Amino acid sequence: MLHLNIGQPDIETPEYFFTTLKTFNEKVLKYGPSGGIVELRLAVVDYLKSYNIDIELDNVWITTGGSEAIIFAFMTIADYGDEFLIFEPFYTNYNGFATEAGVRLTPITLSRENGFHLPSYDTIESYVTDKTRGIIICSPNNPTGTIFTPEEMFIIQKLVKEHGLYLISDEVYREFNYMDVPPTSALSLPEIEDRVIVVDSISKRFSACGARIGYFISRNKDIMSASLKFAQARLCPPTIEQYAAVSAFKHMYKFMDSMIEEYRKRRDVLIEGLKTIPGVESYTPEGAFYAIVKLPVADSEDFIKFLLKDYSYNGKTVMLSPANGFYATKGAGRDEVRIAYVLKEDRLKEAIEILKRGLQAYK
Amino acid sequence: MLHLNIGQPDIETPEYFFTTLKTFNEKVLKYGPSGGIVELRLAVVDYLKSYNIDIELDNVWITTGGSEAIIFAFMTIADYGDEFLIFEPFYTNYNGFATEAGVRLTPITLSRENGFHLPSYDTIESYVTDKTRGIIICSPNNPTGTIFTPEEMFIIQKLVKEHGLYLISDEVYREFNYMDVPPTSALSLPEIEDRVIVVDSISKRFSACGARIGYFISRNKDIMSASLKFAQARLCPPTIEQYAAVSAFKHMYKFMDSMIEEYRKRRDVLIEGLKTIPGVESYTPEGAFYAIVKLPVADSEDFIKFLLKDYSYNGKTVMLSPANGFYATKGAGRDEVRIAYVLKEDRLKEAIEILKRGLQAYK
Repeated sequence: MLHLNIGQPDIETPEYFFTTLKTFNEKVLKYGPSGGIVELRLAVVDYLKSYNIDIELDNVWITTGGSEAIIFAFMTIADYGDEFLIFEPFYTNYNGFATEAGVRLTPITLSRENGFHLPSYDTIESYVTDKTRGIIICSPNNPTGTIFTPEEMFIIQKLVKEHGLYLISDEVYREFNYMDVPPTSALSLPEIEDRVIVVDSISKRFSACGARIGYFISRNKDIMSASLKFAQARLCPPTIEQYAAVSAFKHMYKFMDSMIEEYRKRRDVLIEGLKTIPGVESYTPEGAFYAIVKLPVADSEDFIKFLLKDYSYNGKTVMLSPANGFYATKGAGRDEVRIAYVLKEDRLKEAIEILKRGLQAYK
Repeated sequence: MLHLNIGQPDIETPEYFFTTLKTFNEKVLKYGPSGGIVELRLAVVDYLKSYNIDIELDNVWITTGGSEAIIFAFMTIADYGDEFLIFEPFYTNYNGFATEAGVRLTPITLSRENGFHLPSYDTIESYVTDKTRGIIICSPNNPTGTIFTPEEMFIIQKLVKEHGLYLISDEVYREFNYMDVPPTSALSLPEIEDRVIVVDSISKRFSACGARIGYFISRNKDIMSASLKFAQARLCPPTIEQYAAVSAFKHMYKFMDSMIEEYRKRRDVLIEGLKTIPGVESYTPEGAFYAIVKLPVADSEDFIKFLLKDYSYNGKTVMLSPANGFYATKGAGRDEVRIAYVLKEDRLKEAIEILKRGLQAYK
């Protein structure tokens, strides 16, 4: 079974991470500070400096994964029943976080034809109601791989400013960028400094998904003090992994370049491979390690079941994610799948070959 | 500064815990299962068997600390605006969890005069409204140290049954018991098997507060499947600490008895010591490592500030928690403090002496 369905990287976690973890030598595994250890918060400040983003120590809390940072963001800025604009397809778990926080997500459907980039300002604005509290973006994006251009980020800035909204920007894939310039962070939008929350995580960056270390960043003091209350209620994020994360940040440039180069190669292999399959429609994703791909089938879920139960090639088959789970609009994405290119080049090529033959057999 | 204000045990985390943590030898620190690793869920099943409590593997999810288990409990059984009965004084962080889940806590005030045991069935029942969804208990209790008797647990059972409520039972201090019989678990109440959620954690039991490993237990299948959705949204609890927790459970009887004996001694030292201070009123807590103590002052917060800023004896002073933070009723507990006896015997004696002299100086 070749797994193209989950966002679990196969890249090895850097050894520095494990080394620090294993040299933890306190006698009591105590509660840490609710906002995270200062060393790690400082490491985040330094890390963002390398992207020319200036934040202070007081603008960062450490969270239990990026997941918790998103929940804190919703709970801090929204009241029960508030609405958030979100571009679909989007990361499915935002639905769960929204339910937990009692907020509603208003989907704005993007189009594969333009690589899932934004529609015009006016189109987005037409979705704003008096209940709209904010907007959620993720760039580089899961599940589309799209990176919003600086121009698109300015559209978002304008919308937030004009309508007094808040912007939650999920930037966990920042390094997974195959363009020539870094993605524009929401922290670089000068006119809405007080209205931005960036959620981030070490999970993908250091291939340390099981560490559960994320962070919550805002320059708005009220947001920072309100979110700290939620942090205090749950006491603290895992202690030992925070020290390991400090070490991973310190050494990150030793492994980051080769990891990104590896993913870029995989992306190219995937996109070139897909072009050889009749009826498959894709685009060139600019970042992350996902693509939303149209298949020549009416119901991708049915095709995926076929691959799992009734098909194999040389004793192997491929697992994909049906894309409809990434849309809030009913019926959308039924002929699409999300492909996560988290396999080494030769296995990825093998997976594409199986997909090609599987599609033929399915017809 | 002698800290009697926080529930951070000074007991060393068992070496087995760290050993397992340091021998983790996977190359990639992956996401674990959202409900926790099977090995740890089985360890919890076995652990409860030693208390004659029978549960199945499917009745346990691993959570990120007991904190997350409480949030999952609220979110699973309650709708926005539902009310939960809670006995005050209670663990302050329940307030934060209730806010996050959009539920309201209805306090029922207990009395120090009877060691913070329950009032009659009729008294408790008089607080039930058509909005009441459940009741929260914690036994052995933080902040009172009280363990509810089997008879009191039957009162709770009757209330839950008669009014179709749910019971959230926080049992993180189960081992911290200075009575002759184990505390009655909510899982041992035969008539409300389907209406009980037990939240628990390794934090106090293994002195591993910074590990962030808790668990959520229910025999109700619908509750288990609904809570799994919240677990899936946040992906997984920390991976490595789960393996360490398995090992700690396996070896727990090697260190548990001596730890409990140590706390029992401290409790006796504290209670005997407090009896020598004029105007101080206490009782004999049956479990956990806390007591709510009445001081001969009008405002314990003011006295605590005095101890911190204006008083010292032999260059030392004592830090206490004002008890009013543990009450939801305004003005309640103003002449009380919570004392956490998390210091070794000689330091505890020293702290009591400083408290005694401090009270004299304050007058």
